[in-house]
Amino acid sequence: MPKTYTLQELADLVRGEVVGDPSLVISGLNAIELAGAGEITFVTGPKQTRLLAGSHAAACIVPLAAGEIDLPLIRVPDPDFAAAIIHNYFLAVPFAAEGIDPSAQIGAGCEVPAEVTIKPLVCLGDRVRLGRRVTLHPGVVIGNDSLIGDDTVLYANVTIAAGSVIGSRVIIHSGAVIGSDGFGFATDAAGHHLKKPQVGTVRIDDEVEIGANSCIDRAAFGTTRIRSGVKIDNLVQLAHNVEVGENSIIVAQVGIAGSTTLGRNVVLGGKVAVAGHLHLGDRVMAAGMSGIHGDLPAGSVVGGYPAIDVKRWGRAVAAYSRLPEMLKEIRKLRREVDRLVRRFPDEAEKTNNEGKEK
Amino acid sequence: MPKTYTLQELADLVRGEVVGDPSLVISGLNAIELAGAGEITFVTGPKQTRLLAGSHAAACIVPLAAGEIDLPLIRVPDPDFAAAIIHNYFLAVPFAAEGIDPSAQIGAGCEVPAEVTIKPLVCLGDRVRLGRRVTLHPGVVIGNDSLIGDDTVLYANVTIAAGSVIGSRVIIHSGAVIGSDGFGFATDAAGHHLKKPQVGTVRIDDEVEIGANSCIDRAAFGTTRIRSGVKIDNLVQLAHNVEVGENSIIVAQVGIAGSTTLGRNVVLGGKVAVAGHLHLGDRVMAAGMSGIHGDLPAGSVVGGYPAIDVKRWGRAVAAYSRLPEMLKEIRKLRREVDRLVRRFPDEAEKTNNEGKEK
Amino acid sequence: MPKTYTLQELADLVRGEVVGDPSLVISGLNAIELAGAGEITFVTGPKQTRLLAGSHAAACIVPLAAGEIDLPLIRVPDPDFAAAIIHNYFLAVPFAAEGIDPSAQIGAGCEVPAEVTIKPLVCLGDRVRLGRRVTLHPGVVIGNDSLIGDDTVLYANVTIAAGSVIGSRVIIHSGAVIGSDGFGFATDAAGHHLKKPQVGTVRIDDEVEIGANSCIDRAAFGTTRIRSGVKIDNLVQLAHNVEVGENSIIVAQVGIAGSTTLGRNVVLGGKVAVAGHLHLGDRVMAAGMSGIHGDLPAGSVVGGYPAIDVKRWGRAVAAYSRLPEMLKEIRKLRREVDRLVRRFPDEAEKTNNEGKEK
Repeated sequence: MPKTYTLQELADLVRGEVVGDPSLVISGLNAIELAGAGEITFVTGPKQTRLLAGSHAAACIVPLAAGEIDLPLIRVPDPDFAAAIIHNYFLAVPFAAEGIDPSAQIGAGCEVPAEVTIKPLVCLGDRVRLGRRVTLHPGVVIGNDSLIGDDTVLYANVTIAAGSVIGSRVIIHSGAVIGSDGFGFATDAAGHHLKKPQVGTVRIDDEVEIGANSCIDRAAFGTTRIRSGVKIDNLVQLAHNVEVGENSIIVAQVGIAGSTTLGRNVVLGGKVAVAGHLHLGDRVMAAGMSGIHGDLPAGSVVGGYPAIDVKRWGRAVAAYSRLPEMLKEIRKLRREVDRLVRRFPDEAEKTNNEGKEK
Repeated sequence: MPKTYTLQELADLVRGEVVGDPSLVISGLNAIELAGAGEITFVTGPKQTRLLAGSHAAACIVPLAAGEIDLPLIRVPDPDFAAAIIHNYFLAVPFAAEGIDPSAQIGAGCEVPAEVTIKPLVCLGDRVRLGRRVTLHPGVVIGNDSLIGDDTVLYANVTIAAGSVIGSRVIIHSGAVIGSDGFGFATDAAGHHLKKPQVGTVRIDDEVEIGANSCIDRAAFGTTRIRSGVKIDNLVQLAHNVEVGENSIIVAQVGIAGSTTLGRNVVLGGKVAVAGHLHLGDRVMAAGMSGIHGDLPAGSVVGGYPAIDVKRWGRAVAAYSRLPEMLKEIRKLRREVDRLVRRFPDEAEKTNNEGKEK
Repeated sequence: MPKTYTLQELADLVRGEVVGDPSLVISGLNAIELAGAGEITFVTGPKQTRLLAGSHAAACIVPLAAGEIDLPLIRVPDPDFAAAIIHNYFLAVPFAAEGIDPSAQIGAGCEVPAEVTIKPLVCLGDRVRLGRRVTLHPGVVIGNDSLIGDDTVLYANVTIAAGSVIGSRVIIHSGAVIGSDGFGFATDAAGHHLKKPQVGTVRIDDEVEIGANSCIDRAAFGTTRIRSGVKIDNLVQLAHNVEVGENSIIVAQVGIAGSTTLGRNVVLGGKVAVAGHLHLGDRVMAAGMSGIHGDLPAGSVVGGYPAIDVKRWGRAVAAYSRLPEMLKEIRKLRREVDRLVRRFPDEAEKTNNEGKEK
């Protein structure tokens, strides 16, 4: 049976202002076009607001600036954020421990609280310590001596290599690999590569989310560190000794080379590449597909490859598509200038100038 | 014992014309340089045809336009397509159900027909429904309430998250993750990110193929949809609420951001990036590494970043490598023009012009 | 109990010269900032040498050219390489076979020597042959008829598809997929794609290392081949029939399209894309994010997209960010030249020229 709340209860949750009947009973939150009877929806701007006409939603979360709407409303400064709070509130369920499936393999010396869910075919190495209310989906493999914090969820087929430390309330999606060896080799004169042992670890702080099939390598020495609140999308590559500051956002298919450190609240768009041994300051933002080859001070907003200031990049990008015309125009100018110079030769100045150029 | 067919039987299969002995017995199809006695090979153009001299093939599938070749032939309009038909014909074997391996874990309320092959260490959640002649390789994990169509093959270590719907005759390669959470967060003024619940699903229609370690996220609300006949290569990222139209081709390492929709028979080359909330019309083609930032009408052929018309892009690319010379030439033109202007000052016009530029 | 060696023993190992007490006992190797009592560290240049002042290291491996340092030293031509040798020497432990975990599933007709470690929940298909001292981590799946050489390590959740041949002393990291189908389709006039059977295999030679979640497709016909000593980082895509020459280095997120061959000691930076059916000669180097669209002779060093000579690329990149100014300057030149031409019309030449341009 779904939970229900009154409009007023939901408004109180997000410190919003009710417009309409505060006792209206709401049974869930849904998208504009999918919301049915009893469900609340949300809009963030005028474009979405117009779609409300065709919606079956019972109520709507709207921005403070929204005009008149023929629906019960909750007015808030940030409807997107308020909707996320309300949606999570509807979906929250107390943790129901399923215990350890008999097909799961638990190594020697593990510490596993009673209050966990370990699904079939999970494998813990030796001396693995799990926090309370941990959920391990089928096929999860956790290496020796790893530590998993409270309320953390590892989805199917996640691999946590030996010695990794994962915080609390972390979510790691299927296929992600945490703690595989960094890519480090010493090369002799004959071009043969000798593996540099990768003896460091990975530490992932609280409330981090890591996407499907992403890879975070263990440090060569020391620690690869993902700080609290960081959100990492799918198929991301973080090399050995990378550090990512609090609440940074790393979109799909980004790659960060070894030993690069990111400040807080950095945002890297999809497919961004960052070279090794750099530092990106707090709040740096990089447009998708940027290639970053140098340190960036806090607050930089960049794009392109090599990444430059985003406004400058916007103009370069606009000019790029005109390159063929530029080339043509330069050639025309050359012909016309040559003609003028031929007509008005200036031997003295010419000689002068050639001398300078040498 | 391998199956054998006469040249005539194979020609009939592809509506081709036999040149030479129609009763020649063929035991298989192979590449030009690998084909042995009894095997047929195929060529698509003159370059490959010349390689036939060194081949041990017993016969060859050739284009209608092919000249004289000293081998029994099947002439067809499209040898590549005919070869694929014949090769599949040789390799086709009736499904041989192996049943459910005892080490596989089957949840409560699953519907599993007798005629399936479930290899060791597979894990089905609760209420999973499998079609007939489904093959699940070792390590496959299928979440609760998912549906897998007839004749579908999931290779080792594939993860299908809860609630996913997979069609018939679908092939999903190892390590692919279908239905992991989309990447959606609401951010408060302090820069803290709140997860937006991802309550939608993924639906994959018939005859789709999905490459190794590719990721297709579940919708935030509603459905991420891959329509029939779509072929997706390895390490591809499709974000929440993406829709891919029938028979589209998505090459390795492509990334498509959230809510973008593709028409039919779209072709995206390797590493293409497509921004979110866009629509690419039917038959759009994008060269490898393109970055697409705007809607594209049906039939567009684009390249580059940002993606522009492919012909224009070809010229821009050619000009790009000449940028250093262009810069040098512009500077030379500047010097020569300055010299001319100094020699022929035109005070009236100059003043006029300066006024305009301000 | 950790192994210990004297400074002289370690110096002999790397043919280095001891400075200071040769009988100093060393218990391990560590990074400058992490090395503790009894540990040796290493520096490769003056910048790191300055950090030694704050290090607790007992000794240091230094370049021949290093100045005076107040620590026992081992002088060598290449400290990076010497440190890797010494570090491996400290960490080397004899293989300790754990045998086959009872939860592992071994198919029919497998050849598994006594001297192996097969962790829980590993799955071997039929007729798999393992070399001596092979280690298979949990969740590894090896398909029918595959061959794994001596001393090879497959980390958790690696998939080796049927018929693959993996050499000796190979390391494959978690989630990697070896031998999945190549991406090959024949398309009919209606735009429907017919799968081309991928009947080839993958062969990986000795001492290859393959990163987490990387994908190496089986050949369409014949063999996808990774030669000895090749090192491949995470999330790399190698398509069907690719061949990679000895000791090549392929950094994370690279993609190589079908049938492309690489010579020896090629180095491809992160996210490089290489089109299909090309050949890159020995020692080709490509900067990160390059897109390679043509053959490259041995020794080429390239960057950019499309990839050009790296020096030329460096200049193009510098010019790129000046594109907006170039565009502005061209327009100014145009205005000034037009003014001059208007003042000095040359009817004869103008007519002449227009004639030519038509």
